[in-house]
Amino acid sequence: METKGENTGRPTDPARFFTSKTGSNEQIPGCCSIDFTVAVVLPAGGSGERTGLSTPKQFCTFLSRPLISYTIQAFERVAWIENIVIVVAKDSLDLMVNIVQQFSHKKVKVVPGGSTRHRSIFNGLQAFQGRGEGSALKKPKVVIIHDAVRPFVEEDFLLKIAIAAKEQGASGAIRPLVSTVIATTSEGYLDHSLERAKYRASEMPQGFLYDIIYQAYVQCSEADFEFGTECLHLVLQYCGTNARLVEGPPTLWKVTYKRDLFAAESIIKETLSQTACVVTGVCEESTRLACALQKTLRAQDMHVDVISTSLRSSGTFISKDWNFIHVTVKSTCLTDLGELVKTFKESDHAVLYPVVLILVHLDVLEQSSTSERMAALGGIRDLATEAKRINILLYGILLNHIKDAEQWEEAVEHLSQITTALIKDRNPALTGQLLWV
Amino acid sequence: METKGENTGRPTDPARFFTSKTGSNEQIPGCCSIDFTVAVVLPAGGSGERTGLSTPKQFCTFLSRPLISYTIQAFERVAWIENIVIVVAKDSLDLMVNIVQQFSHKKVKVVPGGSTRHRSIFNGLQAFQGRGEGSALKKPKVVIIHDAVRPFVEEDFLLKIAIAAKEQGASGAIRPLVSTVIATTSEGYLDHSLERAKYRASEMPQGFLYDIIYQAYVQCSEADFEFGTECLHLVLQYCGTNARLVEGPPTLWKVTYKRDLFAAESIIKETLSQTACVVTGVCEESTRLACALQKTLRAQDMHVDVISTSLRSSGTFISKDWNFIHVTVKSTCLTDLGELVKTFKESDHAVLYPVVLILVHLDVLEQSSTSERMAALGGIRDLATEAKRINILLYGILLNHIKDAEQWEEAVEHLSQITTALIKDRNPALTGQLLWV
Repeated sequence: METKGENTGRPTDPARFFTSKTGSNEQIPGCCSIDFTVAVVLPAGGSGERTGLSTPKQFCTFLSRPLISYTIQAFERVAWIENIVIVVAKDSLDLMVNIVQQFSHKKVKVVPGGSTRHRSIFNGLQAFQGRGEGSALKKPKVVIIHDAVRPFVEEDFLLKIAIAAKEQGASGAIRPLVSTVIATTSEGYLDHSLERAKYRASEMPQGFLYDIIYQAYVQCSEADFEFGTECLHLVLQYCGTNARLVEGPPTLWKVTYKRDLFAAESIIKETLSQTACVVTGVCEESTRLACALQKTLRAQDMHVDVISTSLRSSGTFISKDWNFIHVTVKSTCLTDLGELVKTFKESDHAVLYPVVLILVHLDVLEQSSTSERMAALGGIRDLATEAKRINILLYGILLNHIKDAEQWEEAVEHLSQITTALIKDRNPALTGQLLWV
Repeated sequence: METKGENTGRPTDPARFFTSKTGSNEQIPGCCSIDFTVAVVLPAGGSGERTGLSTPKQFCTFLSRPLISYTIQAFERVAWIENIVIVVAKDSLDLMVNIVQQFSHKKVKVVPGGSTRHRSIFNGLQAFQGRGEGSALKKPKVVIIHDAVRPFVEEDFLLKIAIAAKEQGASGAIRPLVSTVIATTSEGYLDHSLERAKYRASEMPQGFLYDIIYQAYVQCSEADFEFGTECLHLVLQYCGTNARLVEGPPTLWKVTYKRDLFAAESIIKETLSQTACVVTGVCEESTRLACALQKTLRAQDMHVDVISTSLRSSGTFISKDWNFIHVTVKSTCLTDLGELVKTFKESDHAVLYPVVLILVHLDVLEQSSTSERMAALGGIRDLATEAKRINILLYGILLNHIKDAEQWEEAVEHLSQITTALIKDRNPALTGQLLWV
């Protein structure tokens, strides 16, 4: 994408989106007002007909992880959400349980769904009543209902929905209409069009006092279970609760068509590509190269830190980034890299997202021959194969030191382009390659 | 994207979408019934606020080409469309004229827009009256009005819209509603929701008898010009023409948010990655490798042809593909590749899309050393730099022949993965690299 500027189609704050796994109440204004319990029900039984794919879209994978896992993570990182109930078709129960295990999701309970969306939601609500399978979860004050295929919902909006639900009994996300809505005659002609300002698209999440939504489902008819579309209507009809509507951000969008799967993958890749950590030893040349690289990467809107340390003592920075660039002049650098891969493995660092690890080997003396250097670094292929098993994508880049200042600047620019390409594409097929600047 | 299956979010037939530059009446059932003249007006003056980008979205680029050019191409390839009038803001006139030249668009006239969408459309219509700047275009029977930011519209749907407009006076594309539409109270509460089956989203393109839409604009009020949203209403109100509504495919979607820019880029890349042409000499080993590669690429749903010929006589296949893989055992292969690049240049082959050209060099005898081979093929970097100037992305892959059948199969699989990655990512930063299997 050759554009720059503020992005309104993805989370506005990627740092919060990706790093705050445990949630952080201090960051959110008004968050201290959450003095009640909140749980989530995620119906995930859809068949995904509109994507045209054989796999239901909640189970389609990007970067080796199914969409549903990203949505679970969006709730799991919020400290004040206690439980997440995932409702899936009976056929998908095993698959879902495996996903929860593979990506180390906590707070999650998987329950079987019903024949319609409303029956599935009701099944999910019953998990708090001890009527579903297994032991009952603690009944929450507020329950948030969301779609499995809206992975980019953010904490501040969930907070608004939860508070509005607590105060009003029910709340729902709305968005402006993108297209003009028209009424058609039965013969297929234009009848009239709606005044856009008076109408909104009803989106998810929606929030409810648990007792209200549960009572609405207990009382509602078979026809409601079969054909009803909106939970907001059920609470209005059976409990007299009129929902407060809250205007949501564009990030609430729903993965509906295959183009949305593409968009979701690109957004996640872009978000992962915004920061990098350049690790360099104490050698003067490598430090200078690291700083020059930092400058060119920053010019591309990337946030780049440079750390001068030995790779072995890298435990301190390992938690914060998805991209590491190791700049070195040492021919024994693969041993150090092997240690770093081991540290990643022990800390389960790359369970949720693939980590990019780029070795930049600078030949300062221009003494070694091409084949000597290839031989010394040839082991990168085996290390890359090992690293890929734990979701670490390892690439190598070789460059020679150039005395001419202008040529050197060009070389650094080329290095920066290759680095950015490897980080953005995050392509597993190219790991273990040694590229040349 | 790790999914397979039919794709409903992009053109259903990429071959037609990308290759039929001149259009082809035989392919379209009922196309012979186009015995009237059709022109297009494309208002492209939007500011693109919703993408959050500083560049209006019609000028955002993918694969080095602005979105508006893809939309123009969608009409230009249709044989029965005579003229395309692009209406742009006065500030963007020069930019637009440059785009038309750079991408060799024919049939196009660029005119300045007005202060609102309706004024811009009226300006576009006046280009057929000799009242705009420059000489008048021939007045068409039917005019199609479309959005500059819906690049995936297909010929068969344009045909339906044109015929319905000819018969009925006006026609418009509709799509099912994605979300439930609700009416809100002035206090921000739920009032009621619409019965989804009775309503549709009004989309583009729309078609009109030229005289009808022109008369509607001549008669309409300042308020219509300022605040009106639908051309369909103007013809109803001022000419009594009730539009026929035609259900359109998902490919009519509008690039609205930045996520849509991502999706558009991915769709175009995917479409370009579905076919490849493997060119191999007459040497037995390279032919065998080419056939093995064809087999593994086909297993990934790619359509792959193998041609045994010298590269120099490649003029016959040059017109049909966006991806070429040259499998060779010759150490002089760069000379041949240089000739091919020259042929591409002379035929302006890569004006619209970047072409991927992959050199696969097979070392049969295992006699040459690494550095000898690197030296022989080192010239690929200069050739790649030259090729990139004309939008050809050149990469090299080296592999050694392996006698052990199982290891050889693994090597071919690895080759296939690297090839697919290069074709799909289409990343200009990695051109000129020699990768190793």
